[in-house]
Amino acid sequence: MKILRYLLIFIPISLIAEFMDISQPLIFLFSALAIIPLAGVMGESTEVISYYAGNRIGGFLNATFGNATELIIAFFAMKAGLFDVVKASIAGSVIGNILLVLGLSMLVGGLKYKTQYFNQKVIDVTASMLLFAVIGLTIPAIFTYTVAPTLLTTRYEGLSVLVAFIMLAIYILSMVFSFFTHKDLYMVKSEEEAAPKWSLKKAIMVLVVATVLIGIESEVFVGTVEPMTKVFGLSQFFVGIILVPIIGNAAEHSTAVMMAYKNKMNVAIEIALGSSLQIILFVTPVLIFLSLLFSPMSIVFNTFELIALIFSVLIANRLASDGESNWLEGVQLIAVYIIIAASFFIL
Amino acid sequence: MKILRYLLIFIPISLIAEFMDISQPLIFLFSALAIIPLAGVMGESTEVISYYAGNRIGGFLNATFGNATELIIAFFAMKAGLFDVVKASIAGSVIGNILLVLGLSMLVGGLKYKTQYFNQKVIDVTASMLLFAVIGLTIPAIFTYTVAPTLLTTRYEGLSVLVAFIMLAIYILSMVFSFFTHKDLYMVKSEEEAAPKWSLKKAIMVLVVATVLIGIESEVFVGTVEPMTKVFGLSQFFVGIILVPIIGNAAEHSTAVMMAYKNKMNVAIEIALGSSLQIILFVTPVLIFLSLLFSPMSIVFNTFELIALIFSVLIANRLASDGESNWLEGVQLIAVYIIIAASFFIL
Amino acid sequence: MKILRYLLIFIPISLIAEFMDISQPLIFLFSALAIIPLAGVMGESTEVISYYAGNRIGGFLNATFGNATELIIAFFAMKAGLFDVVKASIAGSVIGNILLVLGLSMLVGGLKYKTQYFNQKVIDVTASMLLFAVIGLTIPAIFTYTVAPTLLTTRYEGLSVLVAFIMLAIYILSMVFSFFTHKDLYMVKSEEEAAPKWSLKKAIMVLVVATVLIGIESEVFVGTVEPMTKVFGLSQFFVGIILVPIIGNAAEHSTAVMMAYKNKMNVAIEIALGSSLQIILFVTPVLIFLSLLFSPMSIVFNTFELIALIFSVLIANRLASDGESNWLEGVQLIAVYIIIAASFFIL
Repeated sequence: MKILRYLLIFIPISLIAEFMDISQPLIFLFSALAIIPLAGVMGESTEVISYYAGNRIGGFLNATFGNATELIIAFFAMKAGLFDVVKASIAGSVIGNILLVLGLSMLVGGLKYKTQYFNQKVIDVTASMLLFAVIGLTIPAIFTYTVAPTLLTTRYEGLSVLVAFIMLAIYILSMVFSFFTHKDLYMVKSEEEAAPKWSLKKAIMVLVVATVLIGIESEVFVGTVEPMTKVFGLSQFFVGIILVPIIGNAAEHSTAVMMAYKNKMNVAIEIALGSSLQIILFVTPVLIFLSLLFSPMSIVFNTFELIALIFSVLIANRLASDGESNWLEGVQLIAVYIIIAASFFIL
Repeated sequence: MKILRYLLIFIPISLIAEFMDISQPLIFLFSALAIIPLAGVMGESTEVISYYAGNRIGGFLNATFGNATELIIAFFAMKAGLFDVVKASIAGSVIGNILLVLGLSMLVGGLKYKTQYFNQKVIDVTASMLLFAVIGLTIPAIFTYTVAPTLLTTRYEGLSVLVAFIMLAIYILSMVFSFFTHKDLYMVKSEEEAAPKWSLKKAIMVLVVATVLIGIESEVFVGTVEPMTKVFGLSQFFVGIILVPIIGNAAEHSTAVMMAYKNKMNVAIEIALGSSLQIILFVTPVLIFLSLLFSPMSIVFNTFELIALIFSVLIANRLASDGESNWLEGVQLIAVYIIIAASFFIL
Repeated sequence: MKILRYLLIFIPISLIAEFMDISQPLIFLFSALAIIPLAGVMGESTEVISYYAGNRIGGFLNATFGNATELIIAFFAMKAGLFDVVKASIAGSVIGNILLVLGLSMLVGGLKYKTQYFNQKVIDVTASMLLFAVIGLTIPAIFTYTVAPTLLTTRYEGLSVLVAFIMLAIYILSMVFSFFTHKDLYMVKSEEEAAPKWSLKKAIMVLVVATVLIGIESEVFVGTVEPMTKVFGLSQFFVGIILVPIIGNAAEHSTAVMMAYKNKMNVAIEIALGSSLQIILFVTPVLIFLSLLFSPMSIVFNTFELIALIFSVLIANRLASDGESNWLEGVQLIAVYIIIAASFFIL
């Protein structure tokens, strides 16, 4: 969405605010408003580069760097020791993609078109992988909760690393599936690819600059989380599970909703579910591995996060099973999201 | 079922018994036997009124007052402070509708017809809404169990009211969906509507009398629950989750089974699942709002109720997915119901 | 698989080892290696006898004695008081069948054939019965965990026996379904039945000898479990949930994978899911009833086992819903199995 570009003005504003050390909530707000358009610019430059790189490598780049903003924010949060915020933001990204983005897409699209159709087979692969991924994430958590905490030390870290390794392996294999062995499943949608607006050289330059700026803004943003929660009496969970994902994904989300409005439900759903899958299978294990550099972060989510994840994924699978959507399905998804958000807000 | 009419004789019997203050278990039995046919009469009069009101308002009336008996019993139980009985009876109505009524329908119908077919699309909408509704109900409960009990006071009530509000909003929107935007989905089944047996005036009179009598009998009935549980060593949970729903729904249930026997599976399944949905999306929030008048009741169900609800709804979704039923599916549903009932009986 | 026959040499080796009282881990290994081919021989002789017995009785025999090895091992473990090992091995058999065997079948078959197809209707019946069976198993457990432990004594045993009775009744009814009322559903696959390799007399003799030998080896095997776990620091859970099922099912598993490799996915999936169903609906209740002869074993599984069961069955239902499989689905199933096994290993 072009309109988000105007928010780029918040890059200098947030940096000046940080430098002048004004009130933390304002810095929180300004840096958040700066990250939103930067994530959009980053996504666009990745797409341009993918175009030049050809189908396979391009697909790989798009899939892997599609959630780079979340990865960068989470990295700085992890470096600041805010493990709970990191995990809440992972869970929140998945929940937000499935409930809020899919819900808004189905609602907005469904208000214009009575019934919208999507390619059930492709969505089925993604939805069913999501089920596997969430189950894989849940098992070590249950194991951890069932066992006396004193037993959980080094072995426990080993389990997190192993699960992270398996997740990443499945992620790589899923790309072998979609770019090599079963690529015909995915061939349909690339009909109308326009020529890219930037040259490859410019796109790479834009990507580098955007990445650096997101890094800087993320560090500023993360630094305000703790003072912010104190001032407004919000829990870190709420910030992690609701606010961070909305900020990191706003650009991508507006694209999904726009696609649904244009009756391109396949693209809208693939953005929502595919992005969720990347976060679990790619962003999460990369963060686990990076955490080994300073202080190891476990892959164990809390009960609430896990149940919200399981429910979201069950809903996604339920929706994928009939290949159709309407506005009432959208409303229901958003309703579940509001109930979850309200629970965390009240917490 | 006409035969239930003879039970109307228990209206005077139960009132005399209450007046003469005979043994509580007998009053429990007599008032229960009086409520069963009254619920049937109430249902019939609602149908007649709906006929005169035309398609849309009629559908709305039928949907909204279809579970009036449960609402009245629950209201008096709530007034008597028996919150556990109220919530158990809500959960028990849903579980009973899905497991017992659907199970008996599929068994009875399946013994006569090898395979019975139903309109998968319509049932799909109901089954998938049930999944959303139960998830919406589960989230505040998990949130409550995860949090230290001392933190749960006023905010906690606020969450219950918010969830109740969202449920009711979804209920109203679902009627917009089925009576306005997607009404063609539901048009099929009204082929053979006979002329109603009562005039509109008579139907309204019958409805008013039946409602008043159910109110009186419910108050008598609820008053015997506590002494009853003591005499027979039954838990209040057992009474709430098994007995109350059977009494409140007997008339409706016999209709569903009769429809299945006549191979009208669409009607049978819609009664069972549609009724479950009304209880969660309409009866429950109305009770939460009414409770604010005396002592606020939370929307938080206990673990056992929630898991029984989730399992029942997963089964309903599983069954809806193929558009067919047979006697073995009926037996399995009944078996799960018996296991649940036995667990509560033993408790 | 013919190659497993060579392992029969471990029958005398294990007995000599037991007699000479050599190190327990070696006896564990030898007896395990002896049970694997014996289970295969037992399966083959049952199939031959089933052939002579005709369609119905044959189907019944095959269904009922297909998991005889597991039953025998579990019986001796139960006799030795190793209730945790027994229950872990029941859960492990189901999980192993669904995740490992189905996963390997889909992977091996999928590497050769791009997409493999199976009869969705038949698999649907089995998968949906699995869901019911696991739900039936979970309810008494939740009931048990919710109630104060002091209340759980005789009533609790009664519940286990009741649930076992219901499971067995459903099992018998499911055979009425598949051999009588809906036998046409299952008629497709028996096209190419070759003449059996043994005479009826020889098959019965082989069955008797194999059963006796499995009994002897199982008693030896079970006797080594406790010393073994101490020497290697393994938990009894790990032995029960991972090792025992692999040993008891190795022969059957290799058949399933072989069938998938020959593109006979129907047979492969029926072995994996049908076997899981038999274990829950037949082996488990028989063990509960047998336990009444010495010390009653409850039907209550622990949280981890139940969640692993529920997840496995949800996955099985997910996979059955589209009637297709590919290598990536196989990889995902195996990945979940590895995560579960690793969790138990680390425990």
